[in-house]
Amino acid sequence: MHGAGDVRIEDVPDATLIEPTDAILRVTRACICGSDLWPYASMAPSETGQSMGHEAIAIVEDVGAEVRTLKTGDLVVMPFAISDGTCEFCHEGLQTECAHVAFFGNNGMNGAQAEALRIPYADGTLFKLPVGEDDALMPSLLTLADVLGTGHHAAVGAKVSPGKSVAVVGDGAVGLCGVIAAKRLGAEQIIIMGRHPDRIALAQEFGATDVVSERGEEAVQRVKELAGGYGAHSVLECVGLNQSTETAISIARPGGAVGRVGVPQDAMMPGSQTAFYRNVTVSGGPAPVRAYIEGLLPDILEGRIQPGRVFDRTVGLDDVPDGYRAMAERESIKVMVKP
Amino acid sequence: MHGAGDVRIEDVPDATLIEPTDAILRVTRACICGSDLWPYASMAPSETGQSMGHEAIAIVEDVGAEVRTLKTGDLVVMPFAISDGTCEFCHEGLQTECAHVAFFGNNGMNGAQAEALRIPYADGTLFKLPVGEDDALMPSLLTLADVLGTGHHAAVGAKVSPGKSVAVVGDGAVGLCGVIAAKRLGAEQIIIMGRHPDRIALAQEFGATDVVSERGEEAVQRVKELAGGYGAHSVLECVGLNQSTETAISIARPGGAVGRVGVPQDAMMPGSQTAFYRNVTVSGGPAPVRAYIEGLLPDILEGRIQPGRVFDRTVGLDDVPDGYRAMAERESIKVMVKP
Repeated sequence: MHGAGDVRIEDVPDATLIEPTDAILRVTRACICGSDLWPYASMAPSETGQSMGHEAIAIVEDVGAEVRTLKTGDLVVMPFAISDGTCEFCHEGLQTECAHVAFFGNNGMNGAQAEALRIPYADGTLFKLPVGEDDALMPSLLTLADVLGTGHHAAVGAKVSPGKSVAVVGDGAVGLCGVIAAKRLGAEQIIIMGRHPDRIALAQEFGATDVVSERGEEAVQRVKELAGGYGAHSVLECVGLNQSTETAISIARPGGAVGRVGVPQDAMMPGSQTAFYRNVTVSGGPAPVRAYIEGLLPDILEGRIQPGRVFDRTVGLDDVPDGYRAMAERESIKVMVKP
Repeated sequence: MHGAGDVRIEDVPDATLIEPTDAILRVTRACICGSDLWPYASMAPSETGQSMGHEAIAIVEDVGAEVRTLKTGDLVVMPFAISDGTCEFCHEGLQTECAHVAFFGNNGMNGAQAEALRIPYADGTLFKLPVGEDDALMPSLLTLADVLGTGHHAAVGAKVSPGKSVAVVGDGAVGLCGVIAAKRLGAEQIIIMGRHPDRIALAQEFGATDVVSERGEEAVQRVKELAGGYGAHSVLECVGLNQSTETAISIARPGGAVGRVGVPQDAMMPGSQTAFYRNVTVSGGPAPVRAYIEGLLPDILEGRIQPGRVFDRTVGLDDVPDGYRAMAERESIKVMVKP
């Protein structure tokens, strides 16, 4: 990406092993993330550009001398962040706080909207899949790299548990995966907030029980009415704007919790006093999707959840720029890239 | 209180029963709260004034026809908020979110820096004590009305548990009670942040293992150094200013938690992105002290904790104005009022 709206496919030097803990991946599936739309909307023009893409399924092409758990030919999920797998945070299952964490497509790291890329700390970062590269479940498996684990993290942060009422702010791919996660964790009521008919329909198929398409104060009142008068026990914030954050806090039941996974666009959080006076917990952050794969994978393999349905378009590498346009214009929920 | 710095002792009509669920209390001990210092510093001049005080131990003088659990002559703790004892929030132990919650000394309710006052929802609000009104433990029992339960709420919100590192922001009575609460919940390391020698000394007697008297970025670095390099698992925010809140979030270990009990002075919370990127949970609010009394009381009665040591001055009603001055000038940690 060379600036807002300026996505180009370019030839770059081949990825090569640098550290003995590296692996080289050949990407079989990647995708465009809602968070890629932030720079697509506002990035300053850049001569050198920024390599994009942080979600992939890929074949291991080569491994460094110290890689122990992977070999050439393995099919793996590449989560959006690297993690060494050995530090105290990785051991706690919080790989996005790893002592060596870095995010693909940031700070000079290559992105996965590409034919191949280098993976530092391959043992700690990658997760080996028990299927072939053309398995029919590929779209759902690809969501393990980010959006499903991120929706799950929002649900965990919002303390979703059996019998609880849940509200999901944001009807993008992460919000839709939040609906899946909330249902999977036993929520009794799941209110999706949004106004795109295709997304709402999918949310309902995923388990949403109620739809709120109002905005602002009207939306807050509507959610409270639906959720027992006081608001939802658990709120999943899947947008990151000030208004959505304020709404999320306002619709939480006193004593409830908000799980934030939308990247906050502001250093100051609105709703601080509302959260305080209502004893609402605000949790969340970059999801340790690496830690969640093991728990979520069986539900995909055994067909209990179908998060891959968030993909409604597939492009080759040459059409990635059009994929960005389609997502930015809300023509598409989420675009898969097949290099 | 008739405005900033303007505290007067006035004759008011005697408290009388209004609702059948009311009780009338004769105050035997009250106190001045750190939160009373906010209006003492900034309240606009007011003709009618505001009745003050929200912590008391008192004798039941009279009860309405529907009061079932209390009778004339009982000695009770009066928590800072009224609660009906019957709504879903009271049943969950979150009495400060009660459907009928109101705070003493607010919205026309009388305060406890007085000889007597009316208590709505007496059964749900008051807690009967098993001792006499001149028991030697009276100062410690009085902290059950607010500061001990509030410090405990901060510790609960910050997820203090055995073996964890804890940092306490604020060396007032609530922060000092936070130290007691953290130690009581099994914290291994307790870092008190403050610079008043008398308070620091008391914090150390209560169980603080480390002292950080630096401020701002220097303080953040010092706490991180002390707490394993990454920060404290649990942070108790006992001030409520923007700077203290930002510090609290900055010194939390990734994946850690901040328990806020300092009333936020701003609608926007600083440190939103820091909290997000570090997966720090921010919890807390007005403490349901009514719910905590039962658990904390045995530790006071059996001498395991001595929160009453936060009181370093006692005044009669006539000297309440001087008590405010002494606390505002940091001459006193917390002032007890003996009407």
